[in-house]
Amino acid sequence: MTYCVGLKLKDGLVLMSDTLTNAGFDNINKNKKIFHWNVDGSKSIILLTSGNLATSQAVINIINENFKNLDDTSNNILKANSMFQIARIIGKILRNVLSEYKIDGQTGENPYLSTFILGGQIKGDNHKLFLIYPEGNFIEASEDQPFFQIGETKYGKPILVRGFDEKSDFGNAIKLLLVSFDSTMKGNVSVGLPIDLCTLQKDNFKISNEIRINKNDLYFKKISDGWGKTLKKGIKALPPFDFNKY
Amino acid sequence: MTYCVGLKLKDGLVLMSDTLTNAGFDNINKNKKIFHWNVDGSKSIILLTSGNLATSQAVINIINENFKNLDDTSNNILKANSMFQIARIIGKILRNVLSEYKIDGQTGENPYLSTFILGGQIKGDNHKLFLIYPEGNFIEASEDQPFFQIGETKYGKPILVRGFDEKSDFGNAIKLLLVSFDSTMKGNVSVGLPIDLCTLQKDNFKISNEIRINKNDLYFKKISDGWGKTLKKGIKALPPFDFNKY
Repeated sequence: MTYCVGLKLKDGLVLMSDTLTNAGFDNINKNKKIFHWNVDGSKSIILLTSGNLATSQAVINIINENFKNLDDTSNNILKANSMFQIARIIGKILRNVLSEYKIDGQTGENPYLSTFILGGQIKGDNHKLFLIYPEGNFIEASEDQPFFQIGETKYGKPILVRGFDEKSDFGNAIKLLLVSFDSTMKGNVSVGLPIDLCTLQKDNFKISNEIRINKNDLYFKKISDGWGKTLKKGIKALPPFDFNKY
Repeated sequence: MTYCVGLKLKDGLVLMSDTLTNAGFDNINKNKKIFHWNVDGSKSIILLTSGNLATSQAVINIINENFKNLDDTSNNILKANSMFQIARIIGKILRNVLSEYKIDGQTGENPYLSTFILGGQIKGDNHKLFLIYPEGNFIEASEDQPFFQIGETKYGKPILVRGFDEKSDFGNAIKLLLVSFDSTMKGNVSVGLPIDLCTLQKDNFKISNEIRINKNDLYFKKISDGWGKTLKKGIKALPPFDFNKY
């Protein structure tokens, strides 16, 4: 399985993914699920993928191959004029990949579905975050819904719901995400390290170097151990249930 | 949906369930999901239900109707000599209910599946906890797996994994469960108050009065608010991610 989150902050975007993929429990592999494209000074695009790996990889490959088609740029995400148009192009590519399988008569036990989180900014507009559904349609993050999760979303949701603050700086936002990822990994072995992350500073049009947090990362260990202790201490400090009051 | 948890502690059992059921988001109702039977001084049995409400209710009704069959007591849970035999009887009742639907040709969009947590004690043996699968087979709790969850299990699992202590007294175990239920309710509107709970003190053979925690319960509010504050404060106290180290 997969766990990916995209946060929309006042200052920009933070996107994080795990790297485990599996075709059954006896076939677990490591695969990158974070991809980005940049045109210095004008366009920054980050994409997180979850779901069927063949479908996700096909979409990424077609996005990249479309850059070479100089006659028709309508499906070139670097030529699009808004993040909305980029989301439409990726949604269309996704639908095309799936319809090809359908035409060829493949149905499979699991449908070949993938879900994406798209973040980015185009000069002249704000930074934006989208959730692209397996059907190729999509929704945009807002003040009311300032983050999206895909994959194994439930374990790590309570932390995000309570801990998210759009005014966080990147360092604190990444810390919150790591607690959410750690909670997920405590509940589900199919989500695991390494974790990849990218940030995009608003109006900067430069995506941070992709950072990989590996198995022996000291900061991750500190956060995981620290949160475990905080949780135990915090629950201990709450008053126990009193039967006499019921 | 549903969220139910059974904890096996050194001192006995604590079982908790929410009360919301739904047939679609436009048809949400309140239904009891905790049931118990007691033979003073010798047998105490508690059952939590999740899944298809018609199936769960059919199983509960057949358990109760079997008490009246004095000729054949092989399906009477109060006549069984071990918790293992009680789990077998309930599993068999569950399979019979489902096979009746199948014989009658009903397949439905959702299969009519239910899952149960069974806890209890029979004189001469320890207190025990079982998870009964929709297929009617079952597993028993152990030191390595001292609690079972059914229904919407993922949101509230990280808290239990980290916070569970088999040496807890009932007051502290109920507190931990309420934090887990509160986390679930923060993530999923289909799980909600009131919450029902029962406890069984080891070797006591008396199930506590069923306690219902209602919408305006002051203790639940204190736990929910307190945990929210603890979480925010705890995350704040952890060191932020430092880009310079990567």
